[in-house]
Amino acid sequence: MQESERPIGIFDSGIGGLTVYRALKKLLPGERFVYLGDTARLPYGTKSPRTIIRFSLENAEFLTKFDVKALVVACNTSSSVALDELKKKYPQLVIMGVIEPSARMALNLSPRKKIGVIGTEATIRSGKYQKFLRERGAEVFSKACPLFVPLVEEGWIDHPVTRMVAEEYLGEFKNRVDTLILGCTHYPVIKKAISLAVGEDKILVESGEAVGIELKKILNSRGLLSRENQDNDLFFVTDYLQKFERVASLFLGKKVKIEERKFSLC
Amino acid sequence: MQESERPIGIFDSGIGGLTVYRALKKLLPGERFVYLGDTARLPYGTKSPRTIIRFSLENAEFLTKFDVKALVVACNTSSSVALDELKKKYPQLVIMGVIEPSARMALNLSPRKKIGVIGTEATIRSGKYQKFLRERGAEVFSKACPLFVPLVEEGWIDHPVTRMVAEEYLGEFKNRVDTLILGCTHYPVIKKAISLAVGEDKILVESGEAVGIELKKILNSRGLLSRENQDNDLFFVTDYLQKFERVASLFLGKKVKIEERKFSLC
Repeated sequence: MQESERPIGIFDSGIGGLTVYRALKKLLPGERFVYLGDTARLPYGTKSPRTIIRFSLENAEFLTKFDVKALVVACNTSSSVALDELKKKYPQLVIMGVIEPSARMALNLSPRKKIGVIGTEATIRSGKYQKFLRERGAEVFSKACPLFVPLVEEGWIDHPVTRMVAEEYLGEFKNRVDTLILGCTHYPVIKKAISLAVGEDKILVESGEAVGIELKKILNSRGLLSRENQDNDLFFVTDYLQKFERVASLFLGKKVKIEERKFSLC
Repeated sequence: MQESERPIGIFDSGIGGLTVYRALKKLLPGERFVYLGDTARLPYGTKSPRTIIRFSLENAEFLTKFDVKALVVACNTSSSVALDELKKKYPQLVIMGVIEPSARMALNLSPRKKIGVIGTEATIRSGKYQKFLRERGAEVFSKACPLFVPLVEEGWIDHPVTRMVAEEYLGEFKNRVDTLILGCTHYPVIKKAISLAVGEDKILVESGEAVGIELKKILNSRGLLSRENQDNDLFFVTDYLQKFERVASLFLGKKVKIEERKFSLC
């Protein structure tokens, strides 16, 4: 197989990363994707760096069996904690996390360089977003919002409890930031509640588009862009629940088949 | 080693099961315990029966290496889904889950046999509590409360959001039940909010005491009660975070050492 025709691997702790897949697919319609959601062990955001690194390496090992040319870490938590280890283990692959592309997009869009970043406990604790943004002159405000993921998974999208939790987490950002990075694949789903809490005039940055634009540039510069249009993407999870196909269809606007694989991950 | 002097194994998806350990230790002070919290893969309550069974069997395998005489499944989700498989795999062991002891205690305490049961999605979906109670003549009302665990883990114990979520989940129980089973090891921590939402006149049943009383009876009837007082219990987790020792000390009223073990679980 020609090098450019090899697929792109994407992994996330769950199926939230399909929002990143969707953005990549839109920007790179010629590419073939293999997606893995580690639903058996999610969430990652409350776990230790050592365990997040171990899980991330196992996910990457699974995806490299598909002879991928690039690996996208859709999970903000993995991107914060495990990216260096992944690059060390697979130096021959294009490996891209969501942190730097999202942070660069925020720096480009923010009028006064007052940037907020929200994510899981592990993402915020890692300090990766904060360091990258501060080194480029931004004033940064950060906050872990651990209840947002379970609220999205409970389906309380337009719900008074979600608005109250968003207000509690983000009220302090209102007069401080002009731009907010949604540093978790689940957060775009409750963008409305977040926007109300932080002020509707604020710019919200999502990971998918930022990653897609940068990945396209890199693949192009290395002559790795696929020339053929393909539509045989593969979707795997480590624990299968029927609701995933329903949720995935909602995310993607079409039906997809999701398969369970567990053998190689443990 | 004399059979009665072998330890008792306990596992839970996390460290919430220490509330069960504490109750067992109080009722069975002569016993030695080995505790395992599968913190690397928690929560179980949102995952599929197949995966919960696999994780439970792996936890049991770890504990049987300590030559345990009995195995207590502190996790309601595992107890609902994996108990039969565990009994099949280890027919020689006393194996006890939390469902039947808790349900029996509720039947004993409930004045009008109008019993509510709350738990994770997997526990409620399994229907185990409901079936056991209905077969014994109770009128049963059940509800999955998936946001309670993350609220406890966020530390929002006495918080308006927690009261609002409890009201949303449990308001409908108010005029229906006289007794409520707290079918998850995390729920005792927010007992006050639950009690306010369901009505303070209601009887709340926790798993730990119910299990302790029945386990003591069984061990006694089989001549397996330990004669010696021991204080060398062991605590393991599959992902270690420093906060666990702080939380465990809060649960147990004393310091304990928690070790990480991962090798044999994957």
